[in-house]
Amino acid sequence: YAVYKMDELKLNWFSELNSLWPGQCMSLEVEEVLFHERSKYQDVLVFKSKTYGNVLVLDGVIQCTERDEFAYQEMIAHLPLFSHPNPKNVLVIGGGDGGVIREVLKHSSVVSITQCEIDQVVIDVSRKFLPSMSKSMDDPRVTQFVGDGLAFMREHKAEFDVIITDSSDPQGPAEALFEKPYYQLMQKALKDGGIICAQGECVWLHLSLICNMKKFCETVFPSVAYGYCTIPTYPSGQIGFMLCSQNKETNFKEPCRVLSCDEVNKMELKYYNSDVHKAAFVLPQFAKSVSIGKQLCSTWPIQLF
Amino acid sequence: YAVYKMDELKLNWFSELNSLWPGQCMSLEVEEVLFHERSKYQDVLVFKSKTYGNVLVLDGVIQCTERDEFAYQEMIAHLPLFSHPNPKNVLVIGGGDGGVIREVLKHSSVVSITQCEIDQVVIDVSRKFLPSMSKSMDDPRVTQFVGDGLAFMREHKAEFDVIITDSSDPQGPAEALFEKPYYQLMQKALKDGGIICAQGECVWLHLSLICNMKKFCETVFPSVAYGYCTIPTYPSGQIGFMLCSQNKETNFKEPCRVLSCDEVNKMELKYYNSDVHKAAFVLPQFAKSVSIGKQLCSTWPIQLF
Repeated sequence: YAVYKMDELKLNWFSELNSLWPGQCMSLEVEEVLFHERSKYQDVLVFKSKTYGNVLVLDGVIQCTERDEFAYQEMIAHLPLFSHPNPKNVLVIGGGDGGVIREVLKHSSVVSITQCEIDQVVIDVSRKFLPSMSKSMDDPRVTQFVGDGLAFMREHKAEFDVIITDSSDPQGPAEALFEKPYYQLMQKALKDGGIICAQGECVWLHLSLICNMKKFCETVFPSVAYGYCTIPTYPSGQIGFMLCSQNKETNFKEPCRVLSCDEVNKMELKYYNSDVHKAAFVLPQFAKSVSIGKQLCSTWPIQLF
Repeated sequence: YAVYKMDELKLNWFSELNSLWPGQCMSLEVEEVLFHERSKYQDVLVFKSKTYGNVLVLDGVIQCTERDEFAYQEMIAHLPLFSHPNPKNVLVIGGGDGGVIREVLKHSSVVSITQCEIDQVVIDVSRKFLPSMSKSMDDPRVTQFVGDGLAFMREHKAEFDVIITDSSDPQGPAEALFEKPYYQLMQKALKDGGIICAQGECVWLHLSLICNMKKFCETVFPSVAYGYCTIPTYPSGQIGFMLCSQNKETNFKEPCRVLSCDEVNKMELKYYNSDVHKAAFVLPQFAKSVSIGKQLCSTWPIQLF
C-alpha cells in the first residue's frame, strides 16, 4: 500500500521501535548483521548499515553509529572537561564503546581515566567492530573495570575531577543512573571543585524527566546546567547533557579554555568548538520556560515522558 | 525476525523513504488517513498520527506535524524579520499550510503579507485539517495567489522588505527554488535593504548542496548566513535556513530587536527567543569548517548529497 511504504522497508532494515518514544520510529538500512547475542544484561546487536557505518544497538536502541558518533562523544566529554580549570583524573561510567575515552585523552592535563562498564560483551564487540572508538582503550592512562556503576561509585570518595556517565536510557541496566542516589554518590566521589556530565535524554521527548532530574541535581550540586547537541541517529535527532559542579562559581556556558582554530584541528574535533560549547546551553523557548519554572500552557503539544 | 522489527511497523505506519536520505527512514504511527489524492503537482497526504497530531505529507515527504511545526515556522519567519530594522511588506513563497503567515503576523510593523503557493490543494487541505496554521490566512493583511513562485518573482521589482521561501525539497515542484536564477530574481524583488530567508536543508545530510548554495548566494548578496533549528520530524531532526541581505551591514547573528520575556510570551513563541536567534548560527565544527572553505579530511564520515 503506497501510503505506508512499510513493505519496502521490511527486508533488511533495523527499526528502533520503543515505548520511550511512542508513535515514532527511526530505521536504518542493514547491509550485514555482524553480531547478535543476549549478554548477561541486555540484547547486543552490531550491524553494518548502508549509510551510517557500523552500528551498536543495545536492547533495541541505537547507541552509536560510525557516521555520527563524534557529535555525542565530543560533547559529553568536552563540555565538562572545558568547564573544569585543570582536569587530571577522569571517571567514565558506561561508555563501553570507548568513544568518550578517545575524546578525554585529547586533554593533555588528564593523567588517568578510569572506566567502569557493566557489560564485557559491549567492550568486546566494540573492540572488534568499532575500532575508531575502541582503540583508545589501550592507552596506558586508561584503567578499565567491568561492573555496576552504582556499586563502583559507593566505593570511591574524593578521587575524580570529572565524572562522565555515558549510559543507555532509563530502562534496563542504566535505570539507577538517572536517580538522585547516584548523583549523591557522584558528588562524594568528586574531588573539590569536581564536575559531572551525564547523558540527559531529549527535550523534545522527555522534558518532564529532564526537569525532574534538574530539580534533584540542584539539591545536590550548587551549579547545574543542561546542554544538548544534534545527532541524527538518536531519537528526534538530538541528545542532552546534565552538567553539575561542586563549585558554585562554575559557569558552564563559558568554557575555561577557548580553543583557537589550530587547536580545534589538532584535537581533530568535528563537532565541538568553543562557540558550540556556549550555544549548547541555549535551549528552545519551550524547554527554557519549563526549566525556569513556568507552567506549560494548556495547549502545549509536547507529549511528556 | 526480531532484529528488524519491520513486521511490527508494517501496519498503520507512514514511512518517509526517500532517495534524498538513503539508508535512513523516519516513520510515524498512523491513526487515520484523512486525505490522500494526487494534485496537479504532487501526491498530497494528510493523516492523523498517534503522537504528532495531524501530519501533511507531499510526495512522500513530511511537511509539518501539529506537534513540532512551531520550531520551523517560528525560525523561518523570525530570523529574517528580527534581522530587518522595520519589515513592512513581506512575501511568502510556498507555505501553503499558513504557518509562516501566522508567525509573520505577530510583527506589528508588518502591513501586508503576499503569499504565492503553487498548489491550491495544499491550501485547501490545510484549511480543513491544520486549523492552527491555516487560520491566519484570513487576516485582512494577507493576499494569496496560487501560482508558480519563480514566475511570480519575475513580475515583481523592489516591492518587499522580506521574502520567505517555505518550500519542499529540491526534487519536484520546488527544484528551481534552490537555484541561482531564483535568488537573482528575489534580489530584484526586494526593496533597498531587503532580506530573504529560505528553507535550507540539513548539514548532516546535504552539506555539499548547502555549500554550493551559500557560494552562489554570496555572488548575489553582500551578506549571507546559514542558521538552523532542531525539529524531530524533519530528516535527521533538524533543518537549516539560508539568509541573505541586500545590506552588507546586516549581521544576522545579532537581532535588531531583542525580546523581553514578556514580549516572548505575548508573541506566544515556543521555540524562538533572542538567544536562540544568536545560537542558531553557531554550526557544528564539520559544517563551519566547510563553510569557511576548508577541505574535508579524507576520513570524513558525512555522506554528501
